[in-house]
Amino acid sequence: MEEQAKLVRSLKEDAAYGPQHDKTKEAISTLLELKKALPSTSSGSGSSSKAAKYQLKVPKGTKDWSDKDMILREQIFSTITRVFKAHGGVTLDTPVFELREILAGKYGEDSKLIYDLKDQGGELCSLRYDLTVPFARWLAMNPQVQSIKRFHIAKVYRRDQPAMTKGRMREFYQCDFDVAGTFESMVPDAEVLRITKEVLEALEIQNFTIKLNHRKILDGIFEVCGVPDDKTRTISSAVDKLDKLPWSDVRKEMIDEKGLNPAAADKIGEYVVLSGDHTLLQQLQQDARLTSSKKASEGLAEMETLFRYLKVMNVLPRIKFDLSLARGLDYYTGIIYEAVTAASAPKAMPSNKPVDKDADRSEDDSVGVGSIAAGGRYDHLVGMFTGKKQGVPCVGISIGVERVFSLLRARATAMRSNEVEVLVMAIGKTGLLEERMACCAELWEAGVKAEFVYKRKPQLRQQFEYADKSGIPVGVILGEEELAEGTVKVKLLGTGESNEGETVKRTEMASAIRKMLAEAAT
Amino acid sequence: MEEQAKLVRSLKEDAAYGPQHDKTKEAISTLLELKKALPSTSSGSGSSSKAAKYQLKVPKGTKDWSDKDMILREQIFSTITRVFKAHGGVTLDTPVFELREILAGKYGEDSKLIYDLKDQGGELCSLRYDLTVPFARWLAMNPQVQSIKRFHIAKVYRRDQPAMTKGRMREFYQCDFDVAGTFESMVPDAEVLRITKEVLEALEIQNFTIKLNHRKILDGIFEVCGVPDDKTRTISSAVDKLDKLPWSDVRKEMIDEKGLNPAAADKIGEYVVLSGDHTLLQQLQQDARLTSSKKASEGLAEMETLFRYLKVMNVLPRIKFDLSLARGLDYYTGIIYEAVTAASAPKAMPSNKPVDKDADRSEDDSVGVGSIAAGGRYDHLVGMFTGKKQGVPCVGISIGVERVFSLLRARATAMRSNEVEVLVMAIGKTGLLEERMACCAELWEAGVKAEFVYKRKPQLRQQFEYADKSGIPVGVILGEEELAEGTVKVKLLGTGESNEGETVKRTEMASAIRKMLAEAAT
Repeated sequence: MEEQAKLVRSLKEDAAYGPQHDKTKEAISTLLELKKALPSTSSGSGSSSKAAKYQLKVPKGTKDWSDKDMILREQIFSTITRVFKAHGGVTLDTPVFELREILAGKYGEDSKLIYDLKDQGGELCSLRYDLTVPFARWLAMNPQVQSIKRFHIAKVYRRDQPAMTKGRMREFYQCDFDVAGTFESMVPDAEVLRITKEVLEALEIQNFTIKLNHRKILDGIFEVCGVPDDKTRTISSAVDKLDKLPWSDVRKEMIDEKGLNPAAADKIGEYVVLSGDHTLLQQLQQDARLTSSKKASEGLAEMETLFRYLKVMNVLPRIKFDLSLARGLDYYTGIIYEAVTAASAPKAMPSNKPVDKDADRSEDDSVGVGSIAAGGRYDHLVGMFTGKKQGVPCVGISIGVERVFSLLRARATAMRSNEVEVLVMAIGKTGLLEERMACCAELWEAGVKAEFVYKRKPQLRQQFEYADKSGIPVGVILGEEELAEGTVKVKLLGTGESNEGETVKRTEMASAIRKMLAEAAT
Repeated sequence: MEEQAKLVRSLKEDAAYGPQHDKTKEAISTLLELKKALPSTSSGSGSSSKAAKYQLKVPKGTKDWSDKDMILREQIFSTITRVFKAHGGVTLDTPVFELREILAGKYGEDSKLIYDLKDQGGELCSLRYDLTVPFARWLAMNPQVQSIKRFHIAKVYRRDQPAMTKGRMREFYQCDFDVAGTFESMVPDAEVLRITKEVLEALEIQNFTIKLNHRKILDGIFEVCGVPDDKTRTISSAVDKLDKLPWSDVRKEMIDEKGLNPAAADKIGEYVVLSGDHTLLQQLQQDARLTSSKKASEGLAEMETLFRYLKVMNVLPRIKFDLSLARGLDYYTGIIYEAVTAASAPKAMPSNKPVDKDADRSEDDSVGVGSIAAGGRYDHLVGMFTGKKQGVPCVGISIGVERVFSLLRARATAMRSNEVEVLVMAIGKTGLLEERMACCAELWEAGVKAEFVYKRKPQLRQQFEYADKSGIPVGVILGEEELAEGTVKVKLLGTGESNEGETVKRTEMASAIRKMLAEAAT
């Protein structure tokens, strides 16, 4: 293999300036890795021997969900689903991976965070980065659907630096509601903002604010401040960092990294510090410099309409018009918004120390929980797939449930992790295993949730302890005598020894249990 | 790049017999592909231009779920969840990808079907192939959990040849219920089979059978027939093909491909054709050759206990003891089972023509729907992760919902895809857009599911048509006069023009709607 190493070295030099530089480097690094592995492996087999020699863990930035956390998450989903359905949402599900080309050119600077699947022969695929692009791809593939209110609750994947306890993960759920279709201007936009407000209030998120801006106003600002057209998106990305960095740093990035002239940057600085309620809108409408831009004027007119609808729909108290909100994604074309709470903002400025990209940043005060919901209007994304200039226009919201979760977890109260209603128990020395089984089978057939202890001869105390630990409310107690008479004892558990329970006919057992549960609930 | 091609050629020859043959080949083929791409790409950029130049589709073997299909799928999940919860199941969720080592050596010959993520720096990961291995990994990581009944409904990934209309997909849902813990022998096993029966009956699957066998009996058969220890799993894989191939083909595979002597194969043939009810068990218990194997005797004793419990739990009528059932996966150690229907079996024998591995085989009669549920006992899988000999023993069932779906789809009746209760409409020329918005906001706040048409001045007819198309049962009709009086008209839709509806106070609108819906439901 000496020769192979020499060839790799030579290939490396040869390829370093080639057009497919990255992929060549990757293939070479695979070869180098294989070389490294040569002395230690002799069989090359993929099967592991008895004991695990590797670390037992989940991949970085991911977690298992179990027990109370899982129940809280299900409660959050069911609350969000209820609101989405109240607004006429229908649900849709797409594959977890898409053809790689579908995701290309949609996410701006964040494209580097996309997870790719390995080329194992066949199509090249990537894990979905959000639920919006797959939805647009679905609309493009289903031209008969000219309007839809769809929701989708599913996991998305980003190779970002994790901060687990702040809900910044590499695998995380998004809960999306989007309205596709050509409608009266700003009407679906207003309803989507109303839905955002309703969801966050239903989840009892404290003191949230929905920051609102309009891409056309922002682009108009860039235009009148003298930003060249080809720098619009990159300057927009710089503005988007204002929630984490002071203006002086953002200004520096615009000038030093993105080559904007300082005068233009300073003019931008006058606008992007502005935020407030709808009176800010009136102020901007009187700004002759800004309204000289056709784009800005259109944006301002749409915002005026939107504010009127938001007032009628009782959303206005939550809204903050914020000219520093830019959103990183390429595909927004109209209003953009982000819901934030006090926990969203970082508590400190980032340091200039080099960072380990895989390290968890939960303890880093320059990382906040971030926005808990975000979205906007994207009128051209579907058209990017169909190749037609006018695709179906869309507006939507995405709620980041892991971030909401980290806010709600502290407030979670006692919860049961199972829903069993009855424990079928035995009294006496024989344990009555098969009789308990048969009794459970009868209860399951009657639609009652029931368990029995998986022991041949459990002590009565053990069975009561099991019920107590699992929070099972009712016990059905079998004894030799009762079995002979065709009866069982039904007892509300946790009510002390003085409660003897009732003896009922075996055939009436299920209805007696239901009655007992109903009475206990009131 | 001439030199590069030469080097690649040389590398290829050099590496052909190296120990890491496959991976070297793969790296080389990447380089060759890059070379091929050189003349046509000049920028190497990943961003797409205006029009999509690629095919607009989902990856092979995957599909979008929408509309009625989605609702049917949700109904199936909710039925399965109800049964799982009735047996005390608690839910758990794991990441969609695992560290690659976690999956290694668990799936026997099927390991080649695992989807790997690309190495983008950091950990090497693969998409989960089932929910069982991640569950065992979770148990190994959480040693405080010594017993649990857990269920998990989630997608798994297999790079298998697809047959979409038969529910054979590359991305598909599994619905798993597993009992982990050390209990009275065969008790959780019996309950898991009872759950399988309950789920399939609740889904109204017609005429299903649960094929049942025991790995210890099978291994005992191999032992007494003279199969060497190191060939046990590979001969077992051959037996597992008996549902698709005749015995003569399987026998040939054992002798020609797997090097078994013909006498041993013929003895195996006498056993694996046997199937029947529990009387087959008695027959085997009297077979002196078979019971000379300690393993076989243990298996037969466990089966006897199991049959007793299955009788008590009323599962026996669905059970078929079948010695040809082997199951491909490496990790089973006790009973194994598979639920099948008439659609499970292929209608024809496979041809010997070479196949395109990516082509859909829906029209291929040698492909059946396959088993609709499968599982078994796996007592050593958790121990493979902890390195201890005795890990937590487990038994479980996995229900393949896509396959169930393809059986149920034909029977699905009319379903609404949204749940909206009220359409807020306007009468008159002004359209009353903002008044409809405000009225909807009031209904949403009262917990009523409501929509309005996103037009400034919709015709009344258009609004009725919208309600009709969406199946919305109630209309709230706003008019100038009524608004002035603080009233609205509430009307049960689809009841003809003679029904004028009722005029109610705006403040009593929600309760009037609820009353109307309740009356309509009875």
